[in-house]
Amino acid sequence: MTLLHQLQQAIGTATLLSHPAELESYAWDNTGIRLRPDAVVLADTAEQVAATLRCCQAAGVAVTPRGAGTGNVGGALPLQGGVVLSLQRMNRIREINRQDRVAVVEPGVVHADLQQALRPMGLCWPPDPTSTRSCTVGGNLAMCAAGASAVRWGVTRDWVLGLEAVTADGRLLRSGGRTTKGVVGYDLTRLLIGSEGTLAVITAATLQLAPRPEARRSLRALFGSVAAAAEAVAQIMAEGETPAAVELLDTATLALLRRMGTLALPQQAQAMLLLEVCGTAATVDLLAADLEQRLERCAPLELQRARSAEEVESIWQARAALSPALKKYAPKRINEDVVVPVSQLAALVTGLERLSHDSGIPMVSFGHAGNGNLHVNLLVNPADQAIMDRAMVVLQQLFALVLSLQGTLSGEHGVGLQKRDFIAQELDPVALVLQQQIKKVFDPAGILNPGKALPLPSS
Amino acid sequence: MTLLHQLQQAIGTATLLSHPAELESYAWDNTGIRLRPDAVVLADTAEQVAATLRCCQAAGVAVTPRGAGTGNVGGALPLQGGVVLSLQRMNRIREINRQDRVAVVEPGVVHADLQQALRPMGLCWPPDPTSTRSCTVGGNLAMCAAGASAVRWGVTRDWVLGLEAVTADGRLLRSGGRTTKGVVGYDLTRLLIGSEGTLAVITAATLQLAPRPEARRSLRALFGSVAAAAEAVAQIMAEGETPAAVELLDTATLALLRRMGTLALPQQAQAMLLLEVCGTAATVDLLAADLEQRLERCAPLELQRARSAEEVESIWQARAALSPALKKYAPKRINEDVVVPVSQLAALVTGLERLSHDSGIPMVSFGHAGNGNLHVNLLVNPADQAIMDRAMVVLQQLFALVLSLQGTLSGEHGVGLQKRDFIAQELDPVALVLQQQIKKVFDPAGILNPGKALPLPSS
Repeated sequence: MTLLHQLQQAIGTATLLSHPAELESYAWDNTGIRLRPDAVVLADTAEQVAATLRCCQAAGVAVTPRGAGTGNVGGALPLQGGVVLSLQRMNRIREINRQDRVAVVEPGVVHADLQQALRPMGLCWPPDPTSTRSCTVGGNLAMCAAGASAVRWGVTRDWVLGLEAVTADGRLLRSGGRTTKGVVGYDLTRLLIGSEGTLAVITAATLQLAPRPEARRSLRALFGSVAAAAEAVAQIMAEGETPAAVELLDTATLALLRRMGTLALPQQAQAMLLLEVCGTAATVDLLAADLEQRLERCAPLELQRARSAEEVESIWQARAALSPALKKYAPKRINEDVVVPVSQLAALVTGLERLSHDSGIPMVSFGHAGNGNLHVNLLVNPADQAIMDRAMVVLQQLFALVLSLQGTLSGEHGVGLQKRDFIAQELDPVALVLQQQIKKVFDPAGILNPGKALPLPSS
Repeated sequence: MTLLHQLQQAIGTATLLSHPAELESYAWDNTGIRLRPDAVVLADTAEQVAATLRCCQAAGVAVTPRGAGTGNVGGALPLQGGVVLSLQRMNRIREINRQDRVAVVEPGVVHADLQQALRPMGLCWPPDPTSTRSCTVGGNLAMCAAGASAVRWGVTRDWVLGLEAVTADGRLLRSGGRTTKGVVGYDLTRLLIGSEGTLAVITAATLQLAPRPEARRSLRALFGSVAAAAEAVAQIMAEGETPAAVELLDTATLALLRRMGTLALPQQAQAMLLLEVCGTAATVDLLAADLEQRLERCAPLELQRARSAEEVESIWQARAALSPALKKYAPKRINEDVVVPVSQLAALVTGLERLSHDSGIPMVSFGHAGNGNLHVNLLVNPADQAIMDRAMVVLQQLFALVLSLQGTLSGEHGVGLQKRDFIAQELDPVALVLQQQIKKVFDPAGILNPGKALPLPSS
């Protein structure tokens, strides 16, 4: 009670929610887990963020920063109750500058809204998470979320020049700057990106922009096996210009597409690659022809260049609809985000088929194959405890496989709550100790998104 | 004495130098300052690096890591004496993998040697410092050194996937990994890159590679004023495909080129832009034609596309020869590395002309204009104390100008010793405190490259 009063005094005109029905709206994310906070602050300004943190640190209350709640690992869930700090109302695009190729935005700006504002200026921000229509830039930064275009353009951390953020004790900090080169001071910008709101709360970001490609072409290649498609990816990545997207859809994914009825697919197709090239109006068809030739050498069952803008749109809409469709067809899915070096992709997909066969748990895998990044979905029935137990064993086997192939447990979804207890298997122990010490530097009281991103300290 | 014996015991077969004549060879860098260490360790392995650090930490002796000594800010100079830890013998390329597009290299690998090893595989590592023939990859990482290609490909930090490093107390740590996506744990990789050997000593790096562009074309545009050339840069960067290089040479630089006699230049030319495009054999001429059209709209005095490989070579050789030539023609130069947002480049060059005119100190400026990064050289006579005093005033005015234009004091040379006392003007005070705390986490005893990269703590 006292905290609520103190909070309301501290945050001034910002909205404080405490009614159970209102709190319920901030108790979920894309994991399906529900954890209700004790209060929600809807901040409008960095000053209100700072006031919230000062107040909560003094009271020893946990603060969980939150964007749009589209995360897949529970990063926005208030594990210890306390305050959810929503940044959705901080959604101003403060500035876009063409010559400097920068946009200064607040964390609550929806990803697609930013891209729409940039389009008329011939610019884009290269990171492209599939949840573009709802996810926020702040969430993209917190998780270092990427997407299909990372194979060509790099990941989120490569497209941020500077940050404004608030530390756990409510001090405003600025890192980086507005220039595309700069080496003064340690790189706090990239330390905060991907730190999942456990070090500071980002209140503004200076984003580096790229010229929006003038023209795009999409190609679709079908293969008789997932391993053959994976081998083709490795071959494509070993030479020549990097495509703007190299997406892989496995056998179970094609079955799902057939069920959705959106794409006509020959029966013998067991895997699909979706590729994209981009360039100028003058060069794009040459680039597409070059990629087509390289793909032909991988001996696909069928290779098609999309003939029209509509066909391109329908291909990529089918790709974007996969995750929502899975929700519809399976009672529950466990959604993984593993990555292996591209040369190991065929070994990964072969291993996945074996794990699924041996366990009897259906798996649907698709994703950003040019980065070796696959979203592996285990379809399970949460009411069947035997299945759930078996799924936990399979997950552990999957992680062991990925690490044995020199991969990582998350490419873009983050660690959050869901991967927290597994990442000590991946992280170097000395690096982990240093990370825990860095957490203490930024958040000595441990109020910022506790229980996320790092393993719990062994006591 | 005791330390020398302890060191030799600790490092086993590694070479320990302590003879004054030998130490002299490790007392310099590109600044011209000489500071002799008390001993030099030539390490062959990460274990020897660790043993050196353990021994020196126990003795409370400073350790200055050193690559090829090509740095411009005194980063490799042993400010407090102690041990210089040379990594030049750790020069193995451990692995190159085409499909994964990675190279695993030791810090002493010379930049050009790496590029030569990558060329037959159709790959490159995009960072391209002008000192490629002598600088080491370890030095590139320590300073986050970039070069001309950063305008298109990004900077060094964008092309590193993982690091192996040794902490101040001699523990081996691994950060990042081998995949092009990965978000597990805080980003220690980028925290170490650009930290100038003050946090840990890098003993190996997993570098991300890019396909080597099949074809390149160079363009040369001459302008009647530096401001007109700077305006053209802003216009080129505001639209269309990003060139692979956008270099600016100012009036004094053209005078130097005329004196060197390498390029024939019309008398009215006061500034030059050198630009490059890259693409496939099929697309490169289309891209060059597109850039040529965009440049024409900037109304240059003269615009030439290099007709032959020899002509391209001679243009870029002239560019690379500028720094060495300056050494020849001026008794001493103070070499700055400022950056401003591209939209402010014309304001910067106008300000530079005014500063030079008002102070009577000749300045030669050239550099990576597409990133807003200019190397400003103040030509001074170190024997003339009045000039040297005036130069210090001009430097302070230059930094004030750069910061007023939202720029940074260093784009790629780093802070080292030379900029240390100025960067508190640029860094946010809260960010600075956090950086000093991070330094304490990695190096509580303060033995790693003391007095570099960060301002001295105010006592």
